[in-house]
Amino acid sequence: MITRNEALDKAQAALKTHQLDALVAVSPWNVRYLAGTAFMTQRAIPDRLALVVVTPNQEPTFIYCSIEEVQARHDSWLTQLRGYREFAEDPIAILAHTLRSLGGAEGRIGLEMRYLVAEFADDLRRRLPGSALVAADAIFDRMRVVKTPGEIDHLARVALSLDTAIRTAFANAHPGMTEVAVAERLKNEAVAAGADEVPFMVLASGPRTFTAHGLPSATPLVAGDIIRTDVVTSWGGYVGDIARTAFVAPLQPGQADTYQKLAAIQQTVIDAMRPGVRVCDLYHLCDHEFARHGLPFTMPHIGHSIGLVLHEKPMLHPLDTTVLEPGMVFMVEPLVAMQDGVYHTEDLVIITDTMPQVRSRSVDWSQPLVIGA
Amino acid sequence: MITRNEALDKAQAALKTHQLDALVAVSPWNVRYLAGTAFMTQRAIPDRLALVVVTPNQEPTFIYCSIEEVQARHDSWLTQLRGYREFAEDPIAILAHTLRSLGGAEGRIGLEMRYLVAEFADDLRRRLPGSALVAADAIFDRMRVVKTPGEIDHLARVALSLDTAIRTAFANAHPGMTEVAVAERLKNEAVAAGADEVPFMVLASGPRTFTAHGLPSATPLVAGDIIRTDVVTSWGGYVGDIARTAFVAPLQPGQADTYQKLAAIQQTVIDAMRPGVRVCDLYHLCDHEFARHGLPFTMPHIGHSIGLVLHEKPMLHPLDTTVLEPGMVFMVEPLVAMQDGVYHTEDLVIITDTMPQVRSRSVDWSQPLVIGA
Repeated sequence: MITRNEALDKAQAALKTHQLDALVAVSPWNVRYLAGTAFMTQRAIPDRLALVVVTPNQEPTFIYCSIEEVQARHDSWLTQLRGYREFAEDPIAILAHTLRSLGGAEGRIGLEMRYLVAEFADDLRRRLPGSALVAADAIFDRMRVVKTPGEIDHLARVALSLDTAIRTAFANAHPGMTEVAVAERLKNEAVAAGADEVPFMVLASGPRTFTAHGLPSATPLVAGDIIRTDVVTSWGGYVGDIARTAFVAPLQPGQADTYQKLAAIQQTVIDAMRPGVRVCDLYHLCDHEFARHGLPFTMPHIGHSIGLVLHEKPMLHPLDTTVLEPGMVFMVEPLVAMQDGVYHTEDLVIITDTMPQVRSRSVDWSQPLVIGA
Repeated sequence: MITRNEALDKAQAALKTHQLDALVAVSPWNVRYLAGTAFMTQRAIPDRLALVVVTPNQEPTFIYCSIEEVQARHDSWLTQLRGYREFAEDPIAILAHTLRSLGGAEGRIGLEMRYLVAEFADDLRRRLPGSALVAADAIFDRMRVVKTPGEIDHLARVALSLDTAIRTAFANAHPGMTEVAVAERLKNEAVAAGADEVPFMVLASGPRTFTAHGLPSATPLVAGDIIRTDVVTSWGGYVGDIARTAFVAPLQPGQADTYQKLAAIQQTVIDAMRPGVRVCDLYHLCDHEFARHGLPFTMPHIGHSIGLVLHEKPMLHPLDTTVLEPGMVFMVEPLVAMQDGVYHTEDLVIITDTMPQVRSRSVDWSQPLVIGA
């Protein structure tokens, strides 16, 4: 995980690089990055703003709803704390006041314009007519894109434990068991391994795998069916995300072949993930490999960076020319829709000075796992 | 649940009442209300916009990412479907085009300005210079505030099954069991009863109850400790939310007294929830009842409406003058912090022409439940 000094140094450097007079975190992930904690209600009750205000060479100010006072005092590494009483005090008014008192009110204020809602941005513009609101989403993305060694270790631990949970759930499944029962085992294994929550779990079998985000249903596992899962967990604020495909015995003609081709394509893309390579070139390589193996390629992207957010920038898509650097962390997740369902595999890859490292395989997944064989 | 005709009739009426040329749903809840379905990725990947565009006397247009094509075609009751290819097509450009082709581009466009992010609103303003963006958040809130009989039945079913899950988990708990184990039982019971997910569960014992949103931990239940849970479930898009307090045997001096006082205060507030009463008056009544019973009152609000969102308007807080109407649905949730922890109870109340109906009590909770007694 990131430390206070690492995070605040990066924020100070960003102020300088982008000639900002202030940088304000609004989203739970950027608040988590700069304050060391975020509040679960930031998503459930988005009007209940939590903000971190960073100005040059000053201790940042943490603005949050006073309902969260205990967590803010206990879990945040920031020391300038400003709780507001919900409904009685207006967090945008407090933000404007804070910026004025820190000297950032007349200048360039970096804000997440893809997170802050239109009404609050319009209100801040009215309160600070001398300021310019600058879209800082990409500045935050850039700040977080190269992970620290502590973050990489944590992300690898999260990915590996999620992979173990999937493997255990699949290994203990059997024909006739429902998708929901497999999903519950998977979820329990993930939580037992340390996951705080499992916000997102696709788990579907047979033709239900064609639904992009098919939740587990009461459908029982049927002989010869494909089963696909794509699970997201959260652990200390960081996200785990693994997709795997398995088969209910007996393996049907062509299933092993498709599975192995997809694994080979994924490995070819991973092997190419060296510093200096552009992410769009990885996408095109993947497209080319699908064609070479005779598989249909329909993916708008083939993966994404990951960290405090599920889909961090850069995405592995054809319009992104970001160049790989050591310390970047990606999920590489080719998938292919065949007649019997959707095959999907997803692994965590760390970019290093030399060979990329796959850190999400608790076992060898290169051969198909057959349930009930 | 709401039906297609009920929802679209309400949207048409809102266009007329507020003299709008178009109304655009952006949030998952308003998309769910008008399209009959929403996508789980709207929260996880908020840039992947899904929008419903309603114009006078025309079939609404549903704009969504083509990754969700299967779900849109299968689950939505709308027939004008416009999937966009992620990254290759810009959903705001498609929204602008749709508004132009439907005749809504030069007029007043109602949008959720507390949900749509600043960058997208600024972009839409640039693309449609002849239009005025009107904050429609309150218009949508008003549209959804009086529930249909189908919605009321569904919300009551969700609340009752959640209450049963809590009661079962508490009844099967024992001293020495961890908070996590109680929470897992609760979650499994809720899912078995039909909940799609449990996005939010506070469950804490002893001094940990003072944390506003304390997640279950490995702390074991200790004799004499208070235990508090506040659980949110989602079922068919609608939200369930119940809080309960229990005690690990033996009951300590004063615990039963505080518990019963809180229950009595809650019942007094509920009994006052008749059509014509203002929600701020309920707040003041609650404040007065706390004083009368000698309990400290520190709540910024004492409850909230509920439906497709956890906290719907109106909130039961001192600045809201909304007048109660039959068909409104509230969670009434007084809580009090004592020396041994936080006491909290929360029930679903339906406003009727006459007496309010409490629909969330699977058993009589008026006497304290003692675990391991």
